[in-house]
Amino acid sequence: MAVVVQNVRRADPEVIDTLGRAGVATVHEAQGRTGCLGTLLRPVWRGAQVAGSAITISAPPGDNWMLHVAIEQVQPGDILVLAPTSPCEDGYFGDLLATSALARGARGLVIEAGVRDVAELQAMQFPVWSKAISAQGTVKETLGSVNVPIICAGQSIAPGDVICADDDGVVVVRRADAADVAEKARVRLAQEQVKRARLAKGELGLDMYDMRARLNAKGLRYI
Amino acid sequence: MAVVVQNVRRADPEVIDTLGRAGVATVHEAQGRTGCLGTLLRPVWRGAQVAGSAITISAPPGDNWMLHVAIEQVQPGDILVLAPTSPCEDGYFGDLLATSALARGARGLVIEAGVRDVAELQAMQFPVWSKAISAQGTVKETLGSVNVPIICAGQSIAPGDVICADDDGVVVVRRADAADVAEKARVRLAQEQVKRARLAKGELGLDMYDMRARLNAKGLRYI
Amino acid sequence: MAVVVQNVRRADPEVIDTLGRAGVATVHEAQGRTGCLGTLLRPVWRGAQVAGSAITISAPPGDNWMLHVAIEQVQPGDILVLAPTSPCEDGYFGDLLATSALARGARGLVIEAGVRDVAELQAMQFPVWSKAISAQGTVKETLGSVNVPIICAGQSIAPGDVICADDDGVVVVRRADAADVAEKARVRLAQEQVKRARLAKGELGLDMYDMRARLNAKGLRYI
Amino acid sequence: MAVVVQNVRRADPEVIDTLGRAGVATVHEAQGRTGCLGTLLRPVWRGAQVAGSAITISAPPGDNWMLHVAIEQVQPGDILVLAPTSPCEDGYFGDLLATSALARGARGLVIEAGVRDVAELQAMQFPVWSKAISAQGTVKETLGSVNVPIICAGQSIAPGDVICADDDGVVVVRRADAADVAEKARVRLAQEQVKRARLAKGELGLDMYDMRARLNAKGLRYI
Amino acid sequence: MAVVVQNVRRADPEVIDTLGRAGVATVHEAQGRTGCLGTLLRPVWRGAQVAGSAITISAPPGDNWMLHVAIEQVQPGDILVLAPTSPCEDGYFGDLLATSALARGARGLVIEAGVRDVAELQAMQFPVWSKAISAQGTVKETLGSVNVPIICAGQSIAPGDVICADDDGVVVVRRADAADVAEKARVRLAQEQVKRARLAKGELGLDMYDMRARLNAKGLRYI
Amino acid sequence: MAVVVQNVRRADPEVIDTLGRAGVATVHEAQGRTGCLGTLLRPVWRGAQVAGSAITISAPPGDNWMLHVAIEQVQPGDILVLAPTSPCEDGYFGDLLATSALARGARGLVIEAGVRDVAELQAMQFPVWSKAISAQGTVKETLGSVNVPIICAGQSIAPGDVICADDDGVVVVRRADAADVAEKARVRLAQEQVKRARLAKGELGLDMYDMRARLNAKGLRYI
Repeated sequence: MAVVVQNVRRADPEVIDTLGRAGVATVHEAQGRTGCLGTLLRPVWRGAQVAGSAITISAPPGDNWMLHVAIEQVQPGDILVLAPTSPCEDGYFGDLLATSALARGARGLVIEAGVRDVAELQAMQFPVWSKAISAQGTVKETLGSVNVPIICAGQSIAPGDVICADDDGVVVVRRADAADVAEKARVRLAQEQVKRARLAKGELGLDMYDMRARLNAKGLRYI
Repeated sequence: MAVVVQNVRRADPEVIDTLGRAGVATVHEAQGRTGCLGTLLRPVWRGAQVAGSAITISAPPGDNWMLHVAIEQVQPGDILVLAPTSPCEDGYFGDLLATSALARGARGLVIEAGVRDVAELQAMQFPVWSKAISAQGTVKETLGSVNVPIICAGQSIAPGDVICADDDGVVVVRRADAADVAEKARVRLAQEQVKRARLAKGELGLDMYDMRARLNAKGLRYI
Repeated sequence: MAVVVQNVRRADPEVIDTLGRAGVATVHEAQGRTGCLGTLLRPVWRGAQVAGSAITISAPPGDNWMLHVAIEQVQPGDILVLAPTSPCEDGYFGDLLATSALARGARGLVIEAGVRDVAELQAMQFPVWSKAISAQGTVKETLGSVNVPIICAGQSIAPGDVICADDDGVVVVRRADAADVAEKARVRLAQEQVKRARLAKGELGLDMYDMRARLNAKGLRYI
Repeated sequence: MAVVVQNVRRADPEVIDTLGRAGVATVHEAQGRTGCLGTLLRPVWRGAQVAGSAITISAPPGDNWMLHVAIEQVQPGDILVLAPTSPCEDGYFGDLLATSALARGARGLVIEAGVRDVAELQAMQFPVWSKAISAQGTVKETLGSVNVPIICAGQSIAPGDVICADDDGVVVVRRADAADVAEKARVRLAQEQVKRARLAKGELGLDMYDMRARLNAKGLRYI
Repeated sequence: MAVVVQNVRRADPEVIDTLGRAGVATVHEAQGRTGCLGTLLRPVWRGAQVAGSAITISAPPGDNWMLHVAIEQVQPGDILVLAPTSPCEDGYFGDLLATSALARGARGLVIEAGVRDVAELQAMQFPVWSKAISAQGTVKETLGSVNVPIICAGQSIAPGDVICADDDGVVVVRRADAADVAEKARVRLAQEQVKRARLAKGELGLDMYDMRARLNAKGLRYI
Repeated sequence: MAVVVQNVRRADPEVIDTLGRAGVATVHEAQGRTGCLGTLLRPVWRGAQVAGSAITISAPPGDNWMLHVAIEQVQPGDILVLAPTSPCEDGYFGDLLATSALARGARGLVIEAGVRDVAELQAMQFPVWSKAISAQGTVKETLGSVNVPIICAGQSIAPGDVICADDDGVVVVRRADAADVAEKARVRLAQEQVKRARLAKGELGLDMYDMRARLNAKGLRYI
């Protein structure tokens, strides 16, 4: 039952980087308003914006053993994604594990549990999105699995899926959809540029999106 | 049922600015420890301190259509205040709407729901107090109302009421009370200046506020 | 029942400062993964790292009278620790009380309730760990006690216990254990330095901690 | 600031009783899907269904003095509605106060705080909807007000408004709207009776509400 | 994007009924301590114990249109499972929909949102596990999907998976694993019967499970 | 560090039974409005009212091994009290452990975590107050301690302290105070009987407690 899958297919690095540049809100719109992880996940420091391939970790509550196992599976450009098998806020990850993850080329950690050493994580510029900040340590007694499908913060995540994360939160893009979503996000960004310029000049969304007739038809009254 | 009230009476701009300079905690004390919105509302970035006239929005869960309608009603110095008709954390507002609101002269947004593009909002210095940060988008299918009385984070807010917001949260001052509260806040700030100087020199609150006799009468024992 | 205990034994100042330099996560590990206060306590501004002797306060909900009483008991190097007798998020503490506490030499406040004036607290560099940020004020009507044992955020705290706090949260060290824990923390920090260097060079935790045999014995399979 | 308003206008008793028989969900629909208090309010025992005129209470956190004051204002058929001035879960109300309220003819209590003696409340069949069950007692030190407008669980409530409550929660109907809403609720109940019979026979909502064309137009695909 | 999948493969009815008799805790253990949905899901009335095939529904927040669509897909023995596309507590389901679902042979509803008419649901003995009880109604404006894979309360659920639910909560068993898990649950129930008899006679778990040596080896000290 | 203390001093059985009959709210008042455990602890079934001597358990998250160890320490009239070393909602306890605990004479369980088999627990009439109901199982890998002082739901509890629990929640009475508190509770119950009779006849609390003068002095105005 406790397994480490070593062979993970990843999306094209250029596609991943395009998704990273687009940011979470745009990627989420580009794939039809889906894929957002729950708002309980927050960046432990503000200002990072990354995308990478998911190395998934299913770990017992209060036990971070599998993080050590997972780091061996990391390739440059990957993002660790951990979901506990039952809800937990303990500090699974701190500056030593971050040092090790960075040395392997990891771009960040998404964890539906707690982390610690957050001042050091910020100093190292290692991005983490977590459910909690907690100095409470963990044990290394019970196995879990690495690179199996997991549910993290309400979304299903498979190893190799693309994870995008920034100050707005985290979104997952299926590996098979990544190229298509990246292209849609690219187009969307360009369109937003145009809209932003028009709105900045004072044009109203009501006019730009041609909403007045439909509002009227639905029965909106001005008084 | 779905209406846009176009004629909003606002408080005197100088009164509003006095309230803005006083800050939330002082304004709240000046009006008798009332008016604070719930602590679930937090600034999406730290450091803003504003006051403005409320443009109120009652919107369905997961539907931001009325924000577009409301922005047309904004005059320079206004603050948008949105309450969903049932609890929701979706991202109703992002950098495009902020661009539009800024172009109309809005000073900020208070929303008992979610917003996104928070890095951009901070870069634009557009202040937002929200219940959540969420990239999860919304639809434009169901009407709501603009400039009707709403309940936001546990306080009743009428269009034209003065909203003050800073890192401590948000407080509402009834339009009719604004001049009186602003004057009391001004006096209070001056008094606090004096108290601060005395406390900084080491004088105790026990002495400065003359508390010792009353503590003794209530039965406090030193051992 | 309402008492102020004036005679508080404190730990050795050098021991306290060693604990302060070690930080919360390390201190917590050094005393056997115990002593963390709950994650509901968060710094109201990021970047402080302190240790000090606890001046404890048991206060009624929505009543901050005892804070004034407690400040008289503060000696340089102390940290105020307040637990309400029933759950409360009101703003018990702001910039005036902080001015007074600073004048007495207090190093910070830990409070399982709310505080306000957080922009000023940051400007003054007065560190606070609280459950909430709230401008909602309090009254001065009901007595509590100072320097009695309290439960704060799930931990028992006696007056004179050492409180360590940083961006990871808060941990308590019993006064009688402080010297021993400080020594263990010092050793631990030195060891972590070595480990960090090895991990930074790419050595895996799996090898550095010699985990492979035990993982295999427990049944972990690589596929 | 602390006042007791003694003159409360109430809705017609028959109207109130019609609303009580209709139940919360139906009344809420009958007035256009508005008026529900937040889901944090739950019945302390299951099975009650009542309606009555609101006697409103604004009380400090952890202080139940104003409940004693309010009970004098109760007339047969009234419901006590209490909102604390800041969030609180203490047990404001127990079997003694319930005995007194019952003797005055009160039909129940709605409270955005805690109550206790819930086994006795159930034995007495005194209905209570509360935010918490808590044995934690309160003091009688600080004034509040009776029969002023309050915000309870996210809804504005004026003295004399009609409160309906059952196992689904609580809804408020403005006094001035009560007769109209009661009539709409009565019609609605009759219509539901017919619909229920058709659905029970196996007719689908898709057909009964004629939804298929609109679903098709919106783009729903069957595969 | 909005689809209704009409062809759902279901597990063997006898297997489903065996799982239903075993109950949630036993089924969860029988499949290796996996599959529990989050504790936020609670029965709206106590005492039901059911199992059935999942008819899955992905619905927008505050919009219950897809429930009407889903009921047409129900076959006798099915359980409706609804997850909103973003968090919502509105009352999606009440006694009319329950009447219709019962008429189609549904055995219950699992919903990560709210329901209403809970007194009627109990009277009808229609079992529901929900995140909230709320009279707040919904609209019928936006499409969703039926019988696509969903994430409900932290678990991935495919149409046709077996859902077991009782007073302990809800667990999902993959359709392909159902027969195997049912057999293991059957064996487990028999073993528990034996253990229960021995424990009832006063035998200790320490002896029955032969734990003393391992506790001693781990270092447990009796003092 | 992991110890089992075998020698627990208990309060007098008659004192314990007097406290049990008084109920949680009365006991809490009798000892000066102190000792209530947090409202997060709720009975898993309604109607039990018990008192007993605490057998305390400190257990790791997701690991119920120490419950088996603790049951050996139970004497008739004891109540098991478990606090996890970090927050956890897993189901530590079910019908097998309850069978064993009952066979040893335990009167109940108070646990700041989850339990399961709640239908069976009710059928057996074994009372449990817990933070959660969860079928999610636990492991037996990591030691904890039995009969050491713990913090449970915000209260310090020593082995042998008296635990009282009913539908209102849980309160702890120090062993050394138990006789005194029991006597005060007995007196209080008698007084409440008299008050209840007077209130039932329509006498107001305002008069019975002689509150009018003090309300007037504080400034309450009737209008």
